[in-house]
Amino acid sequence: MVKRVFNFGPGPAALPLEVLKVAQEELLDYRGTGMSILEISHRSPEYEDINNQAISLMRELMGVGENYHVLFLGGGASTQFSMIPMNFLPQGKVGAYVDTGTWSAKAIKEAEKLGKVEVVASSKGDKYSYIPKDIKAPNGAAYLHITSNNTIAGTQYQDMPDTDVPLICDMSSDILSRRRDFGKFSVIYAGAQKNIGPAGCTAVIIRDEMLAKCPDSIPTMLNYKTHAKEKSLYNTPPAFAVYIVKLVLEWVKKQGGVSAIEKVNAKKKDVIGGLIDQHGDYFKGTVQQASRSWANITMRLPTEDLEKKLIADAKAAGFIGLKGHRSVGGIRVSLYNAMTLEGAEKLAAFMLDFMKKNPK
Amino acid sequence: MVKRVFNFGPGPAALPLEVLKVAQEELLDYRGTGMSILEISHRSPEYEDINNQAISLMRELMGVGENYHVLFLGGGASTQFSMIPMNFLPQGKVGAYVDTGTWSAKAIKEAEKLGKVEVVASSKGDKYSYIPKDIKAPNGAAYLHITSNNTIAGTQYQDMPDTDVPLICDMSSDILSRRRDFGKFSVIYAGAQKNIGPAGCTAVIIRDEMLAKCPDSIPTMLNYKTHAKEKSLYNTPPAFAVYIVKLVLEWVKKQGGVSAIEKVNAKKKDVIGGLIDQHGDYFKGTVQQASRSWANITMRLPTEDLEKKLIADAKAAGFIGLKGHRSVGGIRVSLYNAMTLEGAEKLAAFMLDFMKKNPK
Repeated sequence: MVKRVFNFGPGPAALPLEVLKVAQEELLDYRGTGMSILEISHRSPEYEDINNQAISLMRELMGVGENYHVLFLGGGASTQFSMIPMNFLPQGKVGAYVDTGTWSAKAIKEAEKLGKVEVVASSKGDKYSYIPKDIKAPNGAAYLHITSNNTIAGTQYQDMPDTDVPLICDMSSDILSRRRDFGKFSVIYAGAQKNIGPAGCTAVIIRDEMLAKCPDSIPTMLNYKTHAKEKSLYNTPPAFAVYIVKLVLEWVKKQGGVSAIEKVNAKKKDVIGGLIDQHGDYFKGTVQQASRSWANITMRLPTEDLEKKLIADAKAAGFIGLKGHRSVGGIRVSLYNAMTLEGAEKLAAFMLDFMKKNPK
Repeated sequence: MVKRVFNFGPGPAALPLEVLKVAQEELLDYRGTGMSILEISHRSPEYEDINNQAISLMRELMGVGENYHVLFLGGGASTQFSMIPMNFLPQGKVGAYVDTGTWSAKAIKEAEKLGKVEVVASSKGDKYSYIPKDIKAPNGAAYLHITSNNTIAGTQYQDMPDTDVPLICDMSSDILSRRRDFGKFSVIYAGAQKNIGPAGCTAVIIRDEMLAKCPDSIPTMLNYKTHAKEKSLYNTPPAFAVYIVKLVLEWVKKQGGVSAIEKVNAKKKDVIGGLIDQHGDYFKGTVQQASRSWANITMRLPTEDLEKKLIADAKAAGFIGLKGHRSVGGIRVSLYNAMTLEGAEKLAAFMLDFMKKNPK
């Protein structure tokens, strides 16, 4: 009997059970090839088909055209922090960044190693508890870089900034979880391990005209042109991770695409966010309500002891991954796409019950 | 009924069936956690245990001590081609390289983008058909870089060069397949997808004293110090691939370690190499016998039509992955660790039978 828990971890995170079942079923013999997908050549027609399908599904779900390349790279989103300025921040230009949390700050630090950076808006002084308004990039900036969802702080852009310079977004923790005008962006990158797959693969969606900017002098593997030209098959790709991404994208499509997913996610965030809105003296939100993330809802309890007890009791009841990041503390409920509404409702009921049993 | 073929592909390649079975069994619920290993946090005790075990097993199987760090990185060995000079080739120094094939040449090209390179030996003029002898790095070179096995050309170092400068080796296609004095090397790197796991993870084994050379000015993710300090957990690692690597290393240990594996591999290469040695007018070896790889045995048949027929007939008989690289043509038989002696013997019998049925 397979045991399954409700995984509210911040990532790597829950995957749809039906995706895991397909992967399990096919693990020794991928569709009659007599080989595991873990053993199959990335030059085989079977893998090319997986890769092509993952690319088309990503475009289709985002509602973007073939003027966007979809890449599947190794090295994590953290490597993108360096690849972005290596490819797009030439000498004499400035890279504009918005600092909304730990991950933005890391992106900024890496860009500063490679070129001139201007932080055009920041909520750092207020513990990253909100998303700045009226973000403006300086005229002639090489790009404006934002982090759409802040996994640690628990904030999320509700609307995307308008800008005349190329908009680049780290969408690691909310890609395909809400409707966005994806066509606004010049580059989107996302570690797969929250909404679209397992750890070990980073999706990069890049508008064709950006490729002309990538300098030939940089390392081949760090040049987006290399991977766009070869459809991520210049070198051996993280094939199994891409295969799981393909299965997850098929699952998203089957759910009804991003707008259907968004409807469920809106309910999930209302169920968990409702604890803060209705019992705010017990479940104390750590961010401004208008900036509250749908993906990672952060809160403190009246005491640290209660927080520890809630995490332990929840684990015993089959709800795991609720510990807040050490820099914020408290409780963090991550509600990525594969978390069901049922899971969120059960957790909310558990937390209300906990509040009654453990008054402050 | 699960169908399994004999996979002689050059990589991604066959994995031990018992490893795949464990992965399949654990795919929905990793050891009672209620989560798939694809969903589990890289900060969980379960993943830390996998990571630590993979590190210790690698050290144990190589016979190196704790003065070697074992890293598991994304980005493939191709990213190492740039990381090596970024970390170890300062201005004013020269990186010495041996050019023994396509992958060496790629490593050289990437190093030339970043610093001064000297090719100290090369078999390029003779179609990469041998491993040069008497390799010497210039005094004061930053390092000497070699490629221990050449997957495409089909050659392999039988003995490793002696040098006073740090010896760096791309061991992607023969790591843990033969006994080597691993303690001779300052850095060893290997894409996992041939002998130690699936695509999506690159092992880097690096001597502690090398870390002092890594400059802080380079991107954090491209600095070996980052990953050594954090045991490859600075960012989200390719967790599932590392898990499979751990299972494969356990399997290697269970077989009796590298010396036991070597004995089987020696028999496999004699079985397939014997076709060339005994029927060289039909199975024409493309490299000098003294440099012949145990891992990738390359040959031409009397005509291209016969080569095509052999590949097609073999596939129909359940032997796949035999097509030579387009730059060499012909037949390539890859005999990585997970290929059984039985598989090699059955293929040899098939090829002898093919020769009889299809005389030149």
